[in-house]
Amino acid sequence: MIETEIVLYDSIRPVRWQDNGLYLLDQRKLPNEEVYLHITSTQALYEAIKDMVVRGAPAIGIAAAYGAVIAAEESTLDSSIGFTQSLYSRLDLLASSRPTAINLFNALNAAKQVVVNNSDPVSTLLAWANKWLADDINANKTIGAQGASCFKAGSRVLTHCNAGALATGGYGTALGVIRSGYQQGLVETIYSAETRPWNQGSRLSLWEFERENIPATLIADSVAASLMQQGLIDWVVVGADSICRNGDIANKIGTYSLAVLAKHHGVKLMVAAPTTTIDLGAESGASIVIEQRSASEILPPHYAKGVVNALNPVFDVTPAHLISAIVTEKGVIESPDARKMRALIE
Amino acid sequence: MIETEIVLYDSIRPVRWQDNGLYLLDQRKLPNEEVYLHITSTQALYEAIKDMVVRGAPAIGIAAAYGAVIAAEESTLDSSIGFTQSLYSRLDLLASSRPTAINLFNALNAAKQVVVNNSDPVSTLLAWANKWLADDINANKTIGAQGASCFKAGSRVLTHCNAGALATGGYGTALGVIRSGYQQGLVETIYSAETRPWNQGSRLSLWEFERENIPATLIADSVAASLMQQGLIDWVVVGADSICRNGDIANKIGTYSLAVLAKHHGVKLMVAAPTTTIDLGAESGASIVIEQRSASEILPPHYAKGVVNALNPVFDVTPAHLISAIVTEKGVIESPDARKMRALIE
Repeated sequence: MIETEIVLYDSIRPVRWQDNGLYLLDQRKLPNEEVYLHITSTQALYEAIKDMVVRGAPAIGIAAAYGAVIAAEESTLDSSIGFTQSLYSRLDLLASSRPTAINLFNALNAAKQVVVNNSDPVSTLLAWANKWLADDINANKTIGAQGASCFKAGSRVLTHCNAGALATGGYGTALGVIRSGYQQGLVETIYSAETRPWNQGSRLSLWEFERENIPATLIADSVAASLMQQGLIDWVVVGADSICRNGDIANKIGTYSLAVLAKHHGVKLMVAAPTTTIDLGAESGASIVIEQRSASEILPPHYAKGVVNALNPVFDVTPAHLISAIVTEKGVIESPDARKMRALIE
Repeated sequence: MIETEIVLYDSIRPVRWQDNGLYLLDQRKLPNEEVYLHITSTQALYEAIKDMVVRGAPAIGIAAAYGAVIAAEESTLDSSIGFTQSLYSRLDLLASSRPTAINLFNALNAAKQVVVNNSDPVSTLLAWANKWLADDINANKTIGAQGASCFKAGSRVLTHCNAGALATGGYGTALGVIRSGYQQGLVETIYSAETRPWNQGSRLSLWEFERENIPATLIADSVAASLMQQGLIDWVVVGADSICRNGDIANKIGTYSLAVLAKHHGVKLMVAAPTTTIDLGAESGASIVIEQRSASEILPPHYAKGVVNALNPVFDVTPAHLISAIVTEKGVIESPDARKMRALIE
């Protein structure tokens, strides 16, 4: 019975290696179409990450890990320059696809370590990438169980964006916690914020919930405060695109807003992410690069005169003091700060 | 010169009486099409308000005032029941179109007073409705000037929803304040929040700004907190759908969120509305009826199984203590409370 239920709430794999390439579930087409793209070149993967075929920090990291396999294969065939130089330039291309998700850079840096003095870089990278993926799914299941252990029975939770199976190797971080809590009967109500402008909530999180028969309620992003005012939310549960050494995090635009609103209303904020999301080079949120995407993602095409325009930052920074708990596969850090983060990192 | 500028920043009239009926600018079609519907029956007006052809509390009130003229005309031709009974049932139909905008009820109640013992109700109501419209535009110009007098030079303002010319007889309340402040050179930057799910910000406020050559920047609703965090906003300026006797207000969903965020960041919140928006029967926000609209306004059509659903409240309540100033045509009330509101009402 338990085995069946685990399968029931863990049925989505957005990134997988097959036929000598990477299959990516095209997340731009969800929920209407379930289409996989077969990626066989670093250039194609660069475009797929940039255009958000694959998105979510851990999923981008996994795609980049397999991207290193593709890059190594291409580099063994590249006679114009040396293997390492060719590989590094291809990894640099992948690194330039998006600026904020730290897992991308962590995966690419790890790939560089893997091939040092290695006589069979392609096979070694493939085994390493497979492990990177498996480790991510395992981390998420651990995060899910540990995060859910923070919930009391009858918890009403709100999640923002999609930190689900689609954003990871599978199972999800924030949605892993919610899946686990729901499966254990601890989660009574799930609200999913629409998450403008890309609608990760309405397009992706709702798709995951419907697919696995988990009841959930969509709200416009600006409804969250009113629900908190009415005492209808106990936990805000989100993922992260970057975690700094002091516990500040970057996540989808709107997370900081929810963090301030949660603090004001005595609602708790959980950030669920694997340790591959930690940016060892960032002392605090001040050093996080926030991606600005095209105005056209939000500005109606009608406006062409240039009198009106749009600003489209897609992440924001939430300071550690607004976070109730950071949950990684290594445990739950309540009221995170630099000291507790140091203990986690070491 | 000044005359020209006044015309330049006051060119929109969404509601007007002509050809023995009411022309309404169909706001569902903006910004792509500028189409006026000619309304000649109370039933058609009921549907136009319900379906948001006309929206915005003061504009709904004006449409209802002219609706009383149409209702009176219909009632003079209705031989089945007495004039007053026929008129009242038609006014009751109009009153049932939407629940939150108090101007609707205030206008319909005023119309009932107008026809008491009146031998020529249609002409009298038409003269009264014309005055109701003219008074609204004049009130907005006064509100605009008084609200703008709160701004220091270089002010960066954020508005939510559309409390513009389109939401009123003309000129607008919140956008009247911003128009006036911009015209006086006090407003440096204007942010307009998209305002999900109906996109009043991107469809309507941006249309007004572009039409009158006022530079403005669209943001997703959830970007506001991040801009405040970066110190980029001085004032949040909004309208109101209802103002209670203690200074609590109802306004477009998301207003309460901005109010909490503004308080947290030391940003000021201005509520601009004519006195026709005061609900004399509401002691506090607790008695405001919040309209819930269809889930289909936010839920993608893909989800038909019923596992996932949507909650779509379209207003929220902001308590007086989060409001820096309520600006009506009768003056500016700083830090509103029951005592100051009582002085205004009396």
